[in-house]
Amino acid sequence: MNKLYDLIVVGGGPGGITAGIYAKRAGLDVVIIERNVPGGAITTTSEVENYTGITKIGGIELATKMFEHASSLSIPFIWDEVKKIIPDGEEKVVECYQETYKAKAVIIAVGASVRKLNIDKERQLIGKGVSYCATCDGSLYKDKIVAIVGGGNTALEDCLYLSNIAKKVYLIHRREEFRGQNILVNQLKEKSNVQLILNSVVSDINGDNKIESIVVENKITKVKQEIKIDGLFICIGRGPDTEMIDGNININSSGYIITDENMKTNYDGIYAIGDIRNSPLKQILCACSDGAIASTKAFEYIKTKNK
Amino acid sequence: MNKLYDLIVVGGGPGGITAGIYAKRAGLDVVIIERNVPGGAITTTSEVENYTGITKIGGIELATKMFEHASSLSIPFIWDEVKKIIPDGEEKVVECYQETYKAKAVIIAVGASVRKLNIDKERQLIGKGVSYCATCDGSLYKDKIVAIVGGGNTALEDCLYLSNIAKKVYLIHRREEFRGQNILVNQLKEKSNVQLILNSVVSDINGDNKIESIVVENKITKVKQEIKIDGLFICIGRGPDTEMIDGNININSSGYIITDENMKTNYDGIYAIGDIRNSPLKQILCACSDGAIASTKAFEYIKTKNK
Repeated sequence: MNKLYDLIVVGGGPGGITAGIYAKRAGLDVVIIERNVPGGAITTTSEVENYTGITKIGGIELATKMFEHASSLSIPFIWDEVKKIIPDGEEKVVECYQETYKAKAVIIAVGASVRKLNIDKERQLIGKGVSYCATCDGSLYKDKIVAIVGGGNTALEDCLYLSNIAKKVYLIHRREEFRGQNILVNQLKEKSNVQLILNSVVSDINGDNKIESIVVENKITKVKQEIKIDGLFICIGRGPDTEMIDGNININSSGYIITDENMKTNYDGIYAIGDIRNSPLKQILCACSDGAIASTKAFEYIKTKNK
Repeated sequence: MNKLYDLIVVGGGPGGITAGIYAKRAGLDVVIIERNVPGGAITTTSEVENYTGITKIGGIELATKMFEHASSLSIPFIWDEVKKIIPDGEEKVVECYQETYKAKAVIIAVGASVRKLNIDKERQLIGKGVSYCATCDGSLYKDKIVAIVGGGNTALEDCLYLSNIAKKVYLIHRREEFRGQNILVNQLKEKSNVQLILNSVVSDINGDNKIESIVVENKITKVKQEIKIDGLFICIGRGPDTEMIDGNININSSGYIITDENMKTNYDGIYAIGDIRNSPLKQILCACSDGAIASTKAFEYIKTKNK
């Protein structure tokens, strides 16, 4: 068993990095555990235009700047994946695949992972035409035909992104109106190679070693049509992954961790921030704010315990 | 009476600007009313080191970047001071000194103003040695003797700032321990020209046209000492200014506006964000997050009203 940290931050996205910065500046012995690359979900965003003060920046570029910010304060990162968090007791245990760590307090900042359509052949054709990340895989579809499923900001942003690469882009959304921002909808409507298919869902995927077509069903008329495509991008949101928590952490009906305004969960010394908690808005700035708050409250909690 | 806006944001600090950005991107007809310069309280901060992704930046420089971000989206600013906000009814009224405006929703983002010691001669000597802003007035005290009152981050940051300018800096704090971050306390302890005076308060200010000395009382020993100084910086926090709201807006015991997690006050269509609300932490990122949330919720509220 390793040494006892003051604070372990699980997840190195914008929220986790901010929590690290605030903890380090407050003098805590803090470490950030990240399984992939720093930046979390923003590394799969093409352009960020709503991080106040930075008019426009690539997602990976912003992630890099955030990581550099943490590095300038010598905040240590551990590159490992968390298997289990044991939230009760005075010494919290974070079990990773390579090693086990412990701390006086833990901030859970693992974000949320992509949601699946859960239809036949979806899993089978991942990487063979089915993708959940336009920024990652879009460049494979130069001058080809793609479809996007979804109606939120990510779907709209991905549609814009793909419209600059692919020959033709279908945007399939189950409702009449988009949840995403008007400014994006208007930008999309100006694209001649984008075709909106509203009130519709993807009911089937065809192809064996490679996607060949999808079946799209209009929910109102019940009419089905087959559309030949080379790529299908599924952008129907993200869901929280709380299975790693070994205990009875309070979650809401959608599976997000319930916290109070101080980001505290129902366990003392365990905080949840960003996309994994029941926050009113999933945005970079909100995750950062959550991180600043959780870190400050964890500092106060640890100070009390040290007395 | 002017036209009916979708949304008026009162205050052009980080929170107000972020609210403006989110509103504009969502397609709302939004305007920001600011009485002074954009950036709010950060314009009086020397260095910002905890805005994630920007390792270190001057307060005024960050404010400028935020204003430029808003300008890139053509968000209109009105340079006027709000006299009264009438929060009830479908059309909210914002009465300024130059003109009166109305909107379907209002976000109150006016921040909080500096607290005073409320002792004799304090008001009389403002600008004659008494100051509430080291960044603004510090440069007047090159090689002189100054005192700072306070124990929070602002007082510590201002003390560091002034220690690079003045010959001698006294930091007077009424408690044994500082509320501010350890990293700042440690930095201060390394400064040879900084002298900490703990458990003490300023009980008197002497001087007529110009400050000459202060009387400092130790709260434990009750001993009083006179200290000759050229400048006194009072950094004992900020208080919210809710007097402009013409109605019974819910506030907490410290005077901050009570909101729910969606930033909504007890009035429909009236939101409060940043330093003026009962938030768990007063930080730039938190104000920005509040702004993003309030704007998104105001958008949903206005959409319902338009149906």
